[in-house]
Amino acid sequence: MVKPISKKISESTVHRLSIYYRALVALENENYKTISSKELAKREKLTPAQVRKDLSFFGSFGTRGLGYPVTELKHKIAGIMGLSSLWNVALIGVGNIGSALVSYKEFAKQGFNIKLIFDNDQRKIGSNHKGITVSDIRYFKKLSNLEKIDMVIIAVPASSAQAVCDDVVEAGIKAILNFAPINLKVPDDIILRNQNMCIELEHLSFALTKRP
Amino acid sequence: MVKPISKKISESTVHRLSIYYRALVALENENYKTISSKELAKREKLTPAQVRKDLSFFGSFGTRGLGYPVTELKHKIAGIMGLSSLWNVALIGVGNIGSALVSYKEFAKQGFNIKLIFDNDQRKIGSNHKGITVSDIRYFKKLSNLEKIDMVIIAVPASSAQAVCDDVVEAGIKAILNFAPINLKVPDDIILRNQNMCIELEHLSFALTKRP
Repeated sequence: MVKPISKKISESTVHRLSIYYRALVALENENYKTISSKELAKREKLTPAQVRKDLSFFGSFGTRGLGYPVTELKHKIAGIMGLSSLWNVALIGVGNIGSALVSYKEFAKQGFNIKLIFDNDQRKIGSNHKGITVSDIRYFKKLSNLEKIDMVIIAVPASSAQAVCDDVVEAGIKAILNFAPINLKVPDDIILRNQNMCIELEHLSFALTKRP
Repeated sequence: MVKPISKKISESTVHRLSIYYRALVALENENYKTISSKELAKREKLTPAQVRKDLSFFGSFGTRGLGYPVTELKHKIAGIMGLSSLWNVALIGVGNIGSALVSYKEFAKQGFNIKLIFDNDQRKIGSNHKGITVSDIRYFKKLSNLEKIDMVIIAVPASSAQAVCDDVVEAGIKAILNFAPINLKVPDDIILRNQNMCIELEHLSFALTKRP
């Protein structure tokens, strides 16, 4: 059972938990039984203090000198992050990015199952993407309720993203990942994340810029 | 001129600077002249204290009661992040994700110009993607030096990513963004970022999981 978290976990911590989770999966494959905060930090280019602070959210854990038990820590993080669950995902928009996302094998591996695909383009509706038939966006509410969709990925052009987002909210979906380069407006109870593909390149430009 | 940063900026801060930058671009378009830490925090779902702390890296800035000057702050962040520069980018791999990236208009808007595309598939070499002819990966070193490539995006299958990465490092490239779901090994002086498309969905699953 996952211990309830009393302290608020920041966005940045959630981001690092994702990174730790992935590192632990890799370490498990490499047959590591335990990992020290120092090794984990080195691997992910963080400080050991940061790692210890992040993992202290799980209460007293790990043994001084031995480190954290890899599998147990992986399961704890998965529990907190909801990665032990299966999530039903609908994708809206099968343009360039949408098509790439349908083919992205890591989603299913992590429990994110794209169950429905929508578009408003008559040439795309009815076509097949990785075994899923593209549905007309007009039937979003009906189909998403039927398939018990938990999350929606919006991958439509910026010009139609807000209208699509409004339909998604109206259908009762509470979690949205937006790829359109626009600031979507949603009610307070909706969890909205924006995926901007530039951000990682900006980390590179930052690092190159500050070099001597 | 950008004041040299004496304090070390953490990865998380760099990430938030990207977010502030994007918010400031939007605010400028909405004709905002100034923005308070409180408004900026609300917009990006952060705490005002966090915003003030992040922006304190730029030294004393902003006026109590009035907030930060939008355009000036935008330029300061752009300077720090290297976003006022133009960067020459090479893309390796034109599968699903690679093709989507070539079409991603935000890259060029932010100064990331994809100048070269490489693949090892004879059916793809010579084909045209958004005006760029796909080159044979065998000529990577020669062409990337010729075109003064600053950064490389690796979008090849996991099985060939390390070999491609080794070639990129050998060609003298110092900044790599990796889309392959694998932990690449690089020398210490190389800046490597991994783009895992699952991470944002994991923020959603985390948020849905902790709901009552």
